[in-house]
Amino acid sequence: MLGEFLEEVREKRPFIHNITNYVTANDVANMLLACGGSPIMSDEAEDVEEITSLCDGLNLNMGTLQKAKVKSMLLAGKKANELQHVVVLDPVGAGSSRFRTETVQTLLKEIRFDVIKGNISEIKTLFKGSGITKGVDANQKELITEENLDSCITMIGQLATQYHTIIVVTGKIDLVSDGETCYIIRNGRSEMGSITGTGCQLSALLAAFVSANPKKKLEAAAAAVGLMGVAGETGWKYMQAGDGNATYRNRIIDAVYNMTKEQLDKGVQYEVR
Amino acid sequence: MLGEFLEEVREKRPFIHNITNYVTANDVANMLLACGGSPIMSDEAEDVEEITSLCDGLNLNMGTLQKAKVKSMLLAGKKANELQHVVVLDPVGAGSSRFRTETVQTLLKEIRFDVIKGNISEIKTLFKGSGITKGVDANQKELITEENLDSCITMIGQLATQYHTIIVVTGKIDLVSDGETCYIIRNGRSEMGSITGTGCQLSALLAAFVSANPKKKLEAAAAAVGLMGVAGETGWKYMQAGDGNATYRNRIIDAVYNMTKEQLDKGVQYEVR
Amino acid sequence: MLGEFLEEVREKRPFIHNITNYVTANDVANMLLACGGSPIMSDEAEDVEEITSLCDGLNLNMGTLQKAKVKSMLLAGKKANELQHVVVLDPVGAGSSRFRTETVQTLLKEIRFDVIKGNISEIKTLFKGSGITKGVDANQKELITEENLDSCITMIGQLATQYHTIIVVTGKIDLVSDGETCYIIRNGRSEMGSITGTGCQLSALLAAFVSANPKKKLEAAAAAVGLMGVAGETGWKYMQAGDGNATYRNRIIDAVYNMTKEQLDKGVQYEVR
Repeated sequence: MLGEFLEEVREKRPFIHNITNYVTANDVANMLLACGGSPIMSDEAEDVEEITSLCDGLNLNMGTLQKAKVKSMLLAGKKANELQHVVVLDPVGAGSSRFRTETVQTLLKEIRFDVIKGNISEIKTLFKGSGITKGVDANQKELITEENLDSCITMIGQLATQYHTIIVVTGKIDLVSDGETCYIIRNGRSEMGSITGTGCQLSALLAAFVSANPKKKLEAAAAAVGLMGVAGETGWKYMQAGDGNATYRNRIIDAVYNMTKEQLDKGVQYEVR
Repeated sequence: MLGEFLEEVREKRPFIHNITNYVTANDVANMLLACGGSPIMSDEAEDVEEITSLCDGLNLNMGTLQKAKVKSMLLAGKKANELQHVVVLDPVGAGSSRFRTETVQTLLKEIRFDVIKGNISEIKTLFKGSGITKGVDANQKELITEENLDSCITMIGQLATQYHTIIVVTGKIDLVSDGETCYIIRNGRSEMGSITGTGCQLSALLAAFVSANPKKKLEAAAAAVGLMGVAGETGWKYMQAGDGNATYRNRIIDAVYNMTKEQLDKGVQYEVR
Repeated sequence: MLGEFLEEVREKRPFIHNITNYVTANDVANMLLACGGSPIMSDEAEDVEEITSLCDGLNLNMGTLQKAKVKSMLLAGKKANELQHVVVLDPVGAGSSRFRTETVQTLLKEIRFDVIKGNISEIKTLFKGSGITKGVDANQKELITEENLDSCITMIGQLATQYHTIIVVTGKIDLVSDGETCYIIRNGRSEMGSITGTGCQLSALLAAFVSANPKKKLEAAAAAVGLMGVAGETGWKYMQAGDGNATYRNRIIDAVYNMTKEQLDKGVQYEVR
């Protein structure tokens, strides 16, 4: 069923404006092309309002955050809100520094987000100031497990309701909640954690999927998360002797490029609560 | 015949200064190394005049354009002109925003370019203010086809004459004109459009080829365009089950790395008018 | 014997703060993950002191140097010194411009480095003002050879002693000296010079290895250099028809990802003087 949202992306070719970090920008662009979307990167304050006006969605990613980019994010975000474009936030490293945490708070106050995606520590920090983020990875003690799943779903649902947004929390188990319904997705592989930028790529996919499926945002977000996980599994199948994380990075993007509706439907493992 | 220009690049190892975007900078650097050139990236105003003085050519690429970089482009471009180095312009996204369009106009007024390379929408915008660029891709209605080829050649030739430069327009059919002679090149594959940065890589190749062949700039520019197209075809031959756009990106650079004079001569399909 | 230092990296997973260039940042991040470390990139002055405080080591790389980044390097470097974190300097392009050379001098005056890694021209410039750096590659006349090896070891040892640091000079022969002992390492392949960023990746490896092995810094630095060389050899063995520098780039990172203690010990070729 989620495969149809991929079809819509392929048909509508959503054009996504990314204000993102320079570490993974190339992979983000190639991932957007792989799924059927089209990327543009622009972070100059003078440029972003016009650029985002040309686009269908906006992806704000806080990696390698700089003060000048915060200004651009605010300008682009407000313009995108005004035009009712989809806006996604990836609060990379929220909780790691005062600058990043304050930026998240400013962005949340000034911009309405359709989707906020992070690891559990970033999401907790974002809403409660209680996350213990160490850099860009989630704190081990906070990870979602089968044992704490129910309480996590409840917490994330409350946050989604409170902020009128879709919350995506990634980890071994991925959760996608709008406060009423929660998709629980169990795909992907632990080796994806040895690649830089899989999270950034997912944020871009979320922007593309939700932009192309504006009437079914929650389902489209779940489809993007499922696609990333299934691509991680498919890409791994093509790994050969001597291949490691650098090649795996390419194989995941390749897997999205080659993914059919049917393969996604067959591969994705989710339940809805 | 065009293969000899590749040989010159391999022999002279032109050192190319790039003021370019952070999305594709890595691929640009590896492509320059692949063809036999040598890259350096520097975009700090205090640094660029000295750096470009050490180099043989300068490649100005307007992707992820920032105000600070415009200043650096002007400083580097004027210094390169003074030293009679080859200067290439890739007006990424010209026509998409006032900032980008005004920057192009400033650069054209202040710097003499040996080559200007863009898609048809960027080139039209650049010279006539009439392009309808949507982001970084050409407008579908403006694409060069066999039907409108003659009028495109005439238009591009007039622009080249007017601005004393070589104009390269890329698309399904590529045109390289100095106003007197036009190379029409029919290589490459449509799948290259699913990779970010092939255009940026071509601009860097143009800088390397023209720098290494200063007495035959038009032919050298045509050779760079032909090389990119043949590499796109060669790289595709090595694609295996499961490979997609991320792997294809690498295979094109690899194909340039392995390209011989003979393979380029055999593979390139061009006519001269 | 050097393999045990890789084991320590895998066990301790050092978290490395990188203030680095946007050309090779992605490869640097993936290389850190490949060796068992964990990367974070942050170059905003407001952010760097807190970020580096969370980390185990700091890697300062002068590629695509900008004035704003120099300020951030100074803040991060002083904080890291205060916390007794390992700090590595990669003076990319030192000697190529007044800005880069002056920056190196400022950094050397204000920050205590555990390791300084460069090619022979960068290292000479750094300490003597006598290097003839052309861009980011070493001057051909200055390369370390078997013939001038003794005098190079003496010179590098003097510099290491003078500045109380470990000096790593890379080239066909790599030297790692703390002024008392010098590791002479003969691994790697010349084709690594056709990939952008292998030097940047090595600097990051040095930060990870020395951070994870604080009581044996010299040996750990030698192990990082040996690992890079052996990975270059291992990666090459997996090269197939049509592969070139772009694929080789991935294969080297992959080789580090898959490297075992035993393979490193067996592959590394070094002598100690």
